[in-house]
Amino acid sequence: MALKLYELAGADADLRFSPHCWKARMALAHKGLTADCTPWRYFDKPLTTALSGQDMVPVLVDGDAVVSDSWRIAQHLEDRYPDRPSLFGNEQGRSLARFINGWADNTLSPPLRMLLVQDIFRLVHDDDKAYFRASREQRMGCRLEEIGTDAEPHLAGFRAALAPLRTLLGDQPFLGGDTPLYADYCAFGVFMWARTIRPLELLEAADPVFAWRDRMLDTFGGMPRNARAVGA
Amino acid sequence: MALKLYELAGADADLRFSPHCWKARMALAHKGLTADCTPWRYFDKPLTTALSGQDMVPVLVDGDAVVSDSWRIAQHLEDRYPDRPSLFGNEQGRSLARFINGWADNTLSPPLRMLLVQDIFRLVHDDDKAYFRASREQRMGCRLEEIGTDAEPHLAGFRAALAPLRTLLGDQPFLGGDTPLYADYCAFGVFMWARTIRPLELLEAADPVFAWRDRMLDTFGGMPRNARAVGA
Repeated sequence: MALKLYELAGADADLRFSPHCWKARMALAHKGLTADCTPWRYFDKPLTTALSGQDMVPVLVDGDAVVSDSWRIAQHLEDRYPDRPSLFGNEQGRSLARFINGWADNTLSPPLRMLLVQDIFRLVHDDDKAYFRASREQRMGCRLEEIGTDAEPHLAGFRAALAPLRTLLGDQPFLGGDTPLYADYCAFGVFMWARTIRPLELLEAADPVFAWRDRMLDTFGGMPRNARAVGA
Repeated sequence: MALKLYELAGADADLRFSPHCWKARMALAHKGLTADCTPWRYFDKPLTTALSGQDMVPVLVDGDAVVSDSWRIAQHLEDRYPDRPSLFGNEQGRSLARFINGWADNTLSPPLRMLLVQDIFRLVHDDDKAYFRASREQRMGCRLEEIGTDAEPHLAGFRAALAPLRTLLGDQPFLGGDTPLYADYCAFGVFMWARTIRPLELLEAADPVFAWRDRMLDTFGGMPRNARAVGA
């Protein structure tokens, strides 16, 4: 059964930077599934609309099933492959992932977006630039060039927002416990977003989150560590 | 075996408003344990210092064990009463509670503190007012009277911060799943803090968090709903 995952890519087709696509890619690896990870640009929206009825990625094609949205992809994989390692462990593990997923979007992504958006603009395909600029400027309510290029204020906000993650990772190696679960991938996605886009250290070396991110980069034979990243 | 829980109280000894003491009280109820819930004011710090080696509440006295800090109290109850209903359900449920506990402190409490601090100042015991003012003004970096009395900006920040709770409670009745677990009490504590202190509706009626809070108020025979609250 051939699986295909459409992932947001830059002008460099190997640069896969979407945090949501990273969640789907990690979920596939967790299930021990190999997928054809296909580059997708914003100008490919008609393709995903035709395929899935909505215009965003990730989109997973799994035989006769077409699934969009990273959370629904995780549910799909858990339901279709129950004999492979569980993404959630149990009902509370699913709640943990669901909560952390929303928390990452709501609390971690906003300061990182301010930090990364101008880099992303430079890295997207030329045919994506007009769409990217218009959609991001509408969302942020200002011109891309008006965002301060000083990383420190955004970094400080990001590090402060990590407090609950830091507390939990002071107690245990992974959010899932002794081994990573989908809850880990939900938080890790935003770190891969930053890592692929901008060679800037987000964390202090003594932060328990730093050590966790290192462990996460080593998962699946170092697949995330070896992914294409700007400046690497 | 007599249990005793020291809880922060106002000038009115029945007014128990600390979110952390509420977590401990709910954990005791969850375990089906009855404790003597004893009022404690800031001027009682020497008492808790002598008892527990630190000067804050909640403090639980359980036979020969004296336990401070709401998270450590929950661990203690889970370990000492393993045959009673579990507070966590499993390892992932413990992670969920730990994360939500930190998130509530880090993300929910700050906007609520701005909303409530002047009311709390009016409600604490006369002998606590000098300590309360000095400690809060140092923490917030401004005089109590400089905080805007318009609730709307703080309410807007609080409601926005609830996003990940709202998503999860759109899927299931409690954070713990079909029944409440300690993760629920960690989030619920801040709602009891607000409820006891200030008769102000924090939530819109259509918010899934509103319905969850209602279910939480009905737990343990309506114990939290019937607790002393200002203006009730």
